[in-house]
Amino acid sequence: MVSTYLANPSFFTPVQPLIQQVEDLMRAQSRGHHSELGAALDHLLASGGKRVRPAVALLTGGMLGADTNRLIVLAAAIELLHTATLVHDDLIDGSLLRRGSPTLNAQWTPAATVLTGDFIFARAAKLAADTHSVAVMQLFAETLTNIVNGEITQMFGSRGLANREDYYRRIRAKTASLFELATGAAALLSPDGEQAESTVCRYGYEVGMAFQIVDDVLDFTGDQATVGKPLGSDLRQGLITLPALYYIEANPEDAEMVEVLKGNRYSEERMSRVINAIRGSGAIDQAMQEARQFVERGLSALTDQPQGVERQALEDLANYIVKRRM
Amino acid sequence: MVSTYLANPSFFTPVQPLIQQVEDLMRAQSRGHHSELGAALDHLLASGGKRVRPAVALLTGGMLGADTNRLIVLAAAIELLHTATLVHDDLIDGSLLRRGSPTLNAQWTPAATVLTGDFIFARAAKLAADTHSVAVMQLFAETLTNIVNGEITQMFGSRGLANREDYYRRIRAKTASLFELATGAAALLSPDGEQAESTVCRYGYEVGMAFQIVDDVLDFTGDQATVGKPLGSDLRQGLITLPALYYIEANPEDAEMVEVLKGNRYSEERMSRVINAIRGSGAIDQAMQEARQFVERGLSALTDQPQGVERQALEDLANYIVKRRM
Repeated sequence: MVSTYLANPSFFTPVQPLIQQVEDLMRAQSRGHHSELGAALDHLLASGGKRVRPAVALLTGGMLGADTNRLIVLAAAIELLHTATLVHDDLIDGSLLRRGSPTLNAQWTPAATVLTGDFIFARAAKLAADTHSVAVMQLFAETLTNIVNGEITQMFGSRGLANREDYYRRIRAKTASLFELATGAAALLSPDGEQAESTVCRYGYEVGMAFQIVDDVLDFTGDQATVGKPLGSDLRQGLITLPALYYIEANPEDAEMVEVLKGNRYSEERMSRVINAIRGSGAIDQAMQEARQFVERGLSALTDQPQGVERQALEDLANYIVKRRM
Repeated sequence: MVSTYLANPSFFTPVQPLIQQVEDLMRAQSRGHHSELGAALDHLLASGGKRVRPAVALLTGGMLGADTNRLIVLAAAIELLHTATLVHDDLIDGSLLRRGSPTLNAQWTPAATVLTGDFIFARAAKLAADTHSVAVMQLFAETLTNIVNGEITQMFGSRGLANREDYYRRIRAKTASLFELATGAAALLSPDGEQAESTVCRYGYEVGMAFQIVDDVLDFTGDQATVGKPLGSDLRQGLITLPALYYIEANPEDAEMVEVLKGNRYSEERMSRVINAIRGSGAIDQAMQEARQFVERGLSALTDQPQGVERQALEDLANYIVKRRM
């Protein structure tokens, strides 16, 4: 399978050759270890991912004048950290497909899947150390902490109390945190990095939040074949996202939806009714509107940053997020 | 449950107050995160462990003049790394008890157990970064890589081909690697550390190998109540250790043992026959003799190191390993 980033939009152009080096560096991480780990890593990396997080790290660091080689190492560390969390997530959720390819746990035992995730964590940590920045390492470890803490909080969270504050906290931990790491760590590798860090981190945060909200909208509105899972799959699994939250805020009297929010299971027919009600409501537009506001705030964080192809690409990337269809 | 290190032998004396600080720092790692993570970490740390690895790090760094505060951070990082690998190991093996206390997976879902292990990895990585040494971070990540690679190799290893080379490779990854990390990283935090690193690493390697061999011998010879599992539990689970390997080298005609080595399951009665045969053979003494040789080589690695209470304690620790009964 050809990596999907090849077919990706213009913001990849300035960093396309570097992304290839990031790919190579990621694949090299299994070298010298058990061949099954190499096979697993190749499978995981071949099944795609748009490499948005590496692109964000490379563009941010490029904009701020960081050393390219260290940025490549950082970008590989971040994408492998992301990959490792997905391996354990898919195992925990029992997901059999991701981006249309079989997950590791669909093919391997739980034991081998746990260990492969651990191995990829280890290689991500090694690459983070290879940036030779203690501050980057600390940010890297804190990010992993926050991602896992978010998942634990979701797992132990009480049903029926879903609200937007919880949602924002959850998607920040799950998604925005890695964008904040990509921008913040790239700044830390840059000559005047400490000064720029909080500003570009803000871009990472806002764009990451928008990215996840659009993902959650596409789960309701996307082309099933493109998204690769049934419409409303989050809600079907008991995951309450922004469109559902806006819907229930506007329709508190919808008894079926209230039951779904409480985590009660429904027949396929009634679940489809609820999902179609959300699809046909203003909740979708409200959520997209909110994603656009996140993007706007992300863009405004860039206004004082150095102009050039990298900043332009970061702006294009932010705008692309709310226009994408997959 | 009182931590068992309180009742431990003389080599803990020089670092006893520091070990308490290591305990406090480890427990503090759940602060600010979900309360269930705090409960899990408290449970894991309360169920003991002798804190041998922290002691080795503190003594080595003390001997070489490293800063005490950084050593405490390092020692906590290493013990948490060890703890995280045990959490995932017990899940994978389906173990319900460790050191007489229920494992996390005996009480929690697999999902929560995977994530708690990940959380502890993350906090261990953060502490490793908090030593402010890039070289320590790299060593830390390489050690985790080697531990996991060892477990994967064991998992995919072919049965019936057990030999001592495989055994040494496995126990180095599983156990000695953490002792090498404890000594090597402590050296890297010391004024003339780079010079001493390979020598004290040698001590860590030899003592770590001896430590695991004695563990494996005690699995055959130990007092069941003290060891906390049935005699020969490794072999019952298909894990071939040094006493079994020496036994089959001396008794290649023992057809039952050959079948066990091939991973074939046996009735309790025949398995007990095999275990008793090993217990009654010279294989136990051979394995202990080998552990003593590892200890001797470990001691000789210390001869050019600075004399003082720390070096004396490291020597005591090495000697204790082959005398301990649990």
